[in-house]
Amino acid sequence: MNNDIRERDFTVGEVPGVLWSPASAPEGAPLILMGHGGGNHKKSPAMTGRAGLLVTAGFHVAVIDAPGHGDRPRSAHDDQEIAELYRAREAGEPEGPIVVRYNAHLAELAVPEWQSTLDTLQKFPEIDPGAPVGYYGINMATAIGVPFVAAEPRIKAAVFGQHWPDALTEHARRITVPVEFAMQWHDEHIPRESALALFDAFASKEKTLHANAGTHKELPRFEADSAVRFFVRHLCPK
Amino acid sequence: MNNDIRERDFTVGEVPGVLWSPASAPEGAPLILMGHGGGNHKKSPAMTGRAGLLVTAGFHVAVIDAPGHGDRPRSAHDDQEIAELYRAREAGEPEGPIVVRYNAHLAELAVPEWQSTLDTLQKFPEIDPGAPVGYYGINMATAIGVPFVAAEPRIKAAVFGQHWPDALTEHARRITVPVEFAMQWHDEHIPRESALALFDAFASKEKTLHANAGTHKELPRFEADSAVRFFVRHLCPK
Repeated sequence: MNNDIRERDFTVGEVPGVLWSPASAPEGAPLILMGHGGGNHKKSPAMTGRAGLLVTAGFHVAVIDAPGHGDRPRSAHDDQEIAELYRAREAGEPEGPIVVRYNAHLAELAVPEWQSTLDTLQKFPEIDPGAPVGYYGINMATAIGVPFVAAEPRIKAAVFGQHWPDALTEHARRITVPVEFAMQWHDEHIPRESALALFDAFASKEKTLHANAGTHKELPRFEADSAVRFFVRHLCPK
Repeated sequence: MNNDIRERDFTVGEVPGVLWSPASAPEGAPLILMGHGGGNHKKSPAMTGRAGLLVTAGFHVAVIDAPGHGDRPRSAHDDQEIAELYRAREAGEPEGPIVVRYNAHLAELAVPEWQSTLDTLQKFPEIDPGAPVGYYGINMATAIGVPFVAAEPRIKAAVFGQHWPDALTEHARRITVPVEFAMQWHDEHIPRESALALFDAFASKEKTLHANAGTHKELPRFEADSAVRFFVRHLCPK
């Protein structure tokens, strides 16, 4: 993070988070809540990279550690599920059933955490409580974000992607805010039809699918630029 | 077209075209060949609008009238096919079979016309014959562009979209340059699976699908901005 970006660490209950802001934020600057991927944490390179782009474009960006991730303790259940995931990988079995089940469990814990975090952030002096709020999360952060955005009327636009629909379809059907959704056309974990089905499920009148050639990990960097433009289009007053 | 844009009309054989260039084009500026949609012409608003964005970004842009379109004479065959299309529309029958057949016929005429046009353009004093060339065409311009780009090694990147795969799949399988492909998720004419199948057929290692909610005519304006960024990414030296 460079000098034009202010970093503020915070905790909400047991949940550690970070808020990045422009050094001189315009009044009423929108806030993006950003979720990290599985096995990752709030200040991982994907988070700081995307936050850098967003803050440069005039947004506040907040990330919290997901349950069992980053600076938070792992439960025995976390350990079990992670061991089971590694076992399946080693055995060449599909990861989907384990990831879907574990992420759904994490989402149950994380949705109320995100709601409390947003309550807290909107009381911070640098955040205008009336400013629009977006959510940005791929992979595990989609598993958490889809039920969160479905439950949270304060979120006005969301970027999701790269997840199975199984535990998410019913939530997606209740989401009506603009959505941008990223998938990989040759994803070795998430079947193409599954990704398309999740995109299809969003009730949003404005939604865009970006499908790129390549495997799961090959999501192109330029999709982060696209996400910034999406939030500018929907959250920044003309 | 504004004062910063130079417009030059030209003809190649019987084919009328227009070249738009930056008032002061950088040396080696890339050239975009752009095709218009069915029933339209080289200076229709979609063409001047997209050309304005591209020229502002530093590109030359050339458009020619397709066979039977714009300033070109209609044949008896054109009249028959257009009458048949209107009849099908009136009767509420699917347009696909007629559009696919008629556009395939137009593509057979238009591919060699585009090749001669490119030969001619590369001899213009304002065009660097070594500069990269792209192709940008949706709808009928995809029906013409896919066989053209498959046959033309001078094209280094292409934006396509909104067409049936029937007459195009074999050509698409020979295209390896980067492709951006636009479809409408609720297209009332082109079945979703057909659009996805055409995107899937491109052999390009780098390809991106943009699917937006909405009907055939509701392709969002911001996809033109995306096309400009795509060409900048692939054709403009870093």
